[in-house]
Amino acid sequence: MESLNPVFPVVWQNDHLELIDQNRLPDEYDLVRISRSEDLAIAIEDMIVRGASAIGVAAAYGIYLGAREIQATERALFLNRLEAVAQTLRDTHSTAVNLSWVIDRMLKAARQTAGDVARIKSVLLETAKQIQNENLQTCYQIGNHGQQALPETPQKLRLLTHCNAGALATAGYGTALGVVRSAWLDDRLERVYATETRPRFQGARLTAWECVEEGIPVTLITDGMAAHCMQQGMVDAVVVGADCIAANGDVVNKVGTYGLALLAKAHHLPFLVAAPLSTVDFGCATGAQISSKTRDGKEISHIFDRPICPMGTEFYNPASDMTPAELVTAIITEQGAIAPSDLHQLKHPPEKR
Amino acid sequence: MESLNPVFPVVWQNDHLELIDQNRLPDEYDLVRISRSEDLAIAIEDMIVRGASAIGVAAAYGIYLGAREIQATERALFLNRLEAVAQTLRDTHSTAVNLSWVIDRMLKAARQTAGDVARIKSVLLETAKQIQNENLQTCYQIGNHGQQALPETPQKLRLLTHCNAGALATAGYGTALGVVRSAWLDDRLERVYATETRPRFQGARLTAWECVEEGIPVTLITDGMAAHCMQQGMVDAVVVGADCIAANGDVVNKVGTYGLALLAKAHHLPFLVAAPLSTVDFGCATGAQISSKTRDGKEISHIFDRPICPMGTEFYNPASDMTPAELVTAIITEQGAIAPSDLHQLKHPPEKR
Repeated sequence: MESLNPVFPVVWQNDHLELIDQNRLPDEYDLVRISRSEDLAIAIEDMIVRGASAIGVAAAYGIYLGAREIQATERALFLNRLEAVAQTLRDTHSTAVNLSWVIDRMLKAARQTAGDVARIKSVLLETAKQIQNENLQTCYQIGNHGQQALPETPQKLRLLTHCNAGALATAGYGTALGVVRSAWLDDRLERVYATETRPRFQGARLTAWECVEEGIPVTLITDGMAAHCMQQGMVDAVVVGADCIAANGDVVNKVGTYGLALLAKAHHLPFLVAAPLSTVDFGCATGAQISSKTRDGKEISHIFDRPICPMGTEFYNPASDMTPAELVTAIITEQGAIAPSDLHQLKHPPEKR
Repeated sequence: MESLNPVFPVVWQNDHLELIDQNRLPDEYDLVRISRSEDLAIAIEDMIVRGASAIGVAAAYGIYLGAREIQATERALFLNRLEAVAQTLRDTHSTAVNLSWVIDRMLKAARQTAGDVARIKSVLLETAKQIQNENLQTCYQIGNHGQQALPETPQKLRLLTHCNAGALATAGYGTALGVVRSAWLDDRLERVYATETRPRFQGARLTAWECVEEGIPVTLITDGMAAHCMQQGMVDAVVVGADCIAANGDVVNKVGTYGLALLAKAHHLPFLVAAPLSTVDFGCATGAQISSKTRDGKEISHIFDRPICPMGTEFYNPASDMTPAELVTAIITEQGAIAPSDLHQLKHPPEKR
């Protein structure tokens, strides 16, 4: 199963990383060349690469790029300096649990590699490639499993999604948009409703772009229109991604997700969360323990560098919100679609046991 | 009771109308001079003047401006031509019931005036001034009555509002923002949360501007953040205006209102609708009978004339949505705050009996 016009946001090119600049889409399709781990940290901060899985994949290469620069040939010293590289990357993005998971896995791969520093560096590059390929396979599986979670309807499905949990947010194919793509390839999909997702317009800029690229009919609405669309019977299910899922099934994702979950419940619509198992933080009992980052108010106050509100206005700009497990119909991972309360039964990824 | 720095969006200046250009706020405070009823119709279409009551007040003067231009001196011919003026204004804005109410009242005033055409023209100008003054008094009363509907809280109130039901949307003082202003003057208000209100940003541009002008602390959030703010206990009540209220208490208002009503219910917060009695269409049994206008998709796709989404994206841009009466805690009119189910007990305005 393959997408018609596949999008890969993170591509390793022999000796450097190429990222699709997600801040410039859809106006321009620009590739940013990254050769140093510090630049990757900045790219994550600036959201040139965004989405939990894509950040994870990029960070894996970021660890390798950092390792490559370490001059030390003494193993213990090398591993020590690698920890500093890891910390710089960890400091960039608090809610993407994949980031921490990927970094842990890379560090572990380094520590567990016998041989000299050159050998460790080589293993780190191979591990990064492996993480990327695994994530791509995971997205294909999520797309497939999602088909069982989608409602059976007399007509083709109208799916509403928020933000961008697409190819751009993963190694490729996407999580929520992976479910959408699989439904499209199975000829079950009529249309996607994409919420524009203020303040950064990931729905308008990225989800709409991915859909248009693949010929999937997409209707863009503002965030405040979702309830009306549901009331008018225009939506059959909501499918979103996740930044982080707690062990009890609480979902932390782009701000606006929680509201959509409440609206879906009020309209008796399935609310589906599509995410790789690596997004689940089994060490985190509930979503209340996951801290949300507050971003710069300028993201709200300015658009295209122009103010939309008067001087003297104050701002509150939370990056994410928390959807309690009871509002989630199913969590779709690479192991299948399950109720959030059954999450603990899933096999933990080997590197997390 | 008076506002500190009062805003009047519609001002009659001896022989012409001056409108605050609400499309240019908050960047520029521009006054648009209107001398012909056709220009007023365009101003309503273009939302230079907006908000049900402000449109009503402007339309009253618009009828006079149209009347002034009619050359006919024969009474029957004059009244006939006045109907054509009225129709042009009626065609501009479908959900503002005040528009139709005001036009009916102006036409009735014309028909019921004894004397020649000059006398009718003079009565039309006086009636327009009277409608404006009545609306201002109505807003003061709504502000006062709103205080009884606001919850009693140990700390000062944090009120969330949507769009702009402010001085700019009325003759002055506002409906939802009238309630906010009265709470502020009574020292009961801590802060307003204003949703930016996509696609036209009336919350960011107009509500934030009115609050800043009067020194009322205002925090701007995107539409998708309201649920999170409620979950975090940052909001004590929601107060909004209305474009039109059906006899059963269903409320048609700016798109996004219905979603906020569902979110308020889920968080056990009062959902208050502040509107003059003239907003109630007693001839309309339920909100389902009120048609919603769909606006140009360009309002979603472009900001400051720049696209935010790729070519090939489709749009759905409903202007308003419908909040069922059961989600409304109280409707606050100039006659008091009442449950929507008691709406039919209110005295109809004299000209609507």
